[in-house]
Amino acid sequence: MRLADLETPRLVLEAGRMEANVARLKARLAGLGVALRPHVKTCKSVEVARAIVGDQAGPITVSTLREAEHFLENGFTDILYAVGLAPGKLNHVLALRHRGADLAVVVDSVEAAQAVAARAEGIPALIEVDCDGHRAGVKPADPLLLDIARALARGAEPRGVMTHAGDSYNCRGAEAIAGMAERERDAVVRSAALLRSAGFACPVVSVGSTPTATFARSLEGVTEVRAGVFVFHDLVMAGLGVCGVEDIAISVLATVIGHQRDKGWIITDAGWMALSRDRGTSRQAVDQGYGLVCAEDGRVLGDLVVADANQEHGIVARRDGSPFDVTPWPVGTHLRILPNHACATAAQHDAYQVVRAGDDLVARWPRFNGW
Amino acid sequence: MRLADLETPRLVLEAGRMEANVARLKARLAGLGVALRPHVKTCKSVEVARAIVGDQAGPITVSTLREAEHFLENGFTDILYAVGLAPGKLNHVLALRHRGADLAVVVDSVEAAQAVAARAEGIPALIEVDCDGHRAGVKPADPLLLDIARALARGAEPRGVMTHAGDSYNCRGAEAIAGMAERERDAVVRSAALLRSAGFACPVVSVGSTPTATFARSLEGVTEVRAGVFVFHDLVMAGLGVCGVEDIAISVLATVIGHQRDKGWIITDAGWMALSRDRGTSRQAVDQGYGLVCAEDGRVLGDLVVADANQEHGIVARRDGSPFDVTPWPVGTHLRILPNHACATAAQHDAYQVVRAGDDLVARWPRFNGW
Repeated sequence: MRLADLETPRLVLEAGRMEANVARLKARLAGLGVALRPHVKTCKSVEVARAIVGDQAGPITVSTLREAEHFLENGFTDILYAVGLAPGKLNHVLALRHRGADLAVVVDSVEAAQAVAARAEGIPALIEVDCDGHRAGVKPADPLLLDIARALARGAEPRGVMTHAGDSYNCRGAEAIAGMAERERDAVVRSAALLRSAGFACPVVSVGSTPTATFARSLEGVTEVRAGVFVFHDLVMAGLGVCGVEDIAISVLATVIGHQRDKGWIITDAGWMALSRDRGTSRQAVDQGYGLVCAEDGRVLGDLVVADANQEHGIVARRDGSPFDVTPWPVGTHLRILPNHACATAAQHDAYQVVRAGDDLVARWPRFNGW
Repeated sequence: MRLADLETPRLVLEAGRMEANVARLKARLAGLGVALRPHVKTCKSVEVARAIVGDQAGPITVSTLREAEHFLENGFTDILYAVGLAPGKLNHVLALRHRGADLAVVVDSVEAAQAVAARAEGIPALIEVDCDGHRAGVKPADPLLLDIARALARGAEPRGVMTHAGDSYNCRGAEAIAGMAERERDAVVRSAALLRSAGFACPVVSVGSTPTATFARSLEGVTEVRAGVFVFHDLVMAGLGVCGVEDIAISVLATVIGHQRDKGWIITDAGWMALSRDRGTSRQAVDQGYGLVCAEDGRVLGDLVVADANQEHGIVARRDGSPFDVTPWPVGTHLRILPNHACATAAQHDAYQVVRAGDDLVARWPRFNGW
């Protein structure tokens, strides 16, 4: 099978680009002396996760217990579930632990810590720290950390602290991201110091986002980095300067189904169901619409973007909206669309069509969703 | 099982609301003397489609050949594939027709018509008309319609015309939508008249969108209406005045996992993976963020919306961003989030958890995605 034979839309993965992305981040983190605990919420694929951690049992980060379950069934046991735990999920967590997962959870309140400790099963838990006002977590070095750790110690295992610099996605330039990385590092290192001063060993000090992992200058005191998007990269990362457009390893194969010649529109069969509704580049200097358009061979076609998307229709136009000659792209032509946000676009598909050199399909790697 | 027992996030369907939505549109269209060909891209569920068409073999509208295949395997044979055909899908179309589907396709160019006719299999095809400059299609009553019909007649079956008033989603008020409905009707009726004047019978004259179906005053000359969202409704439809918030039949069950008390934030486990990235209400008078927040029993909680969403985190806040007392919603509380866009939110889930009176789960109806 070749790309040209695929019924569209389909999600294409360039294995060589992915492997280069993995090698680059691993080399960087090795230089900084920290472990990588890749976030598999981006790929939700055993084969992709294996391309990162090899034949080890992890470590990996997950965003759902469905991910934890699927990866456990495929030989991964060292798992961090990095979303604040809903107490109603404790039975599920315990079932996975009893099946052999060293599954750790995350809490950021005394009430959640009490729920975990009440099971008296020694469930390991990290306390979430809020380094940037972006989402969940306790303020860095807040005495509340001690209350939570003490609540955990009554039946769970306080294993350390974690944070996520989500605000790094809003930074402009490498300097700003490096500053955010230092803020992220400082938030957990100070929090760990407070916990240690009260007698908690705090063996895990975890940070993570692809931008901060790429530009951090020091990760002293940090034990692991969680990053997910780096494996594929995307247009948001390219807009941040974290990668180049040529590093983006996934794209959506689409077919031209019509035109509006007077408007300079090419209509394709890749709408938001294939691309996702993510508009992450809309706040960046270069707005890529619903994705940047390439030829079937992966060559970027100047400034053509997916300007609008219905469920199963994509409207390809020039970024500035000016009409152009659509004749070179007749009905039936294949195009490839680079995604704004790799996690969101990949989630719209049930498999990766894997290519290496040329357009031969070398594998089909399944992926999954759900909870 | 009860709602309270579900691990979250999950997609909840209130069967009574859905049945009332179906009965309302059917009564309306019966009064206007036209058939309903529901668009099952919204539900992608055999059980929901059966609630609309009963035990008949259709008619239904689909947006992918995967839908056509799944519904064919479940007893539906009268199917319109309402997205402009990519010629590479003709083998798939023919395979489904040979298995018993009366599957019709859509074209809007001579080149696509020639590709369909070249198979010499009498594939029925509708010609798409562009009633509102919104997407695909030939201009109403454009002589190009005749060229396309003649190209089809050389081996396919020119069965009629169809249009979709996508721009009705941008109308303000019932009067404006009724005007758009008349424009939609006029576009296909004039196009059909042109084709008939040239000797084409044009038995099918098809229109469709939930807003125009709801407010059209006359559908004279139209033979069928394609509408999909009406079965569930959503916040975009409520914002247009097409339904009330109390008619919305699907919601996402979520759990409180934490708070940022100083900001007036409730953090839940329903992020964009559960809600979708759709922000369809962002251009309406009332912006509902990523969804409107209800208690577990479905009661709307004043002006709480999902103000921001990460992959598996939702941030619930007041619409105006002002802090409030989050104490009534401790960690573990269930909430229900009404969706901006039913098609997009439902697509993030693999099943409907069906409730009727109270919170007893009466069924689990599977749904599917893909192409």
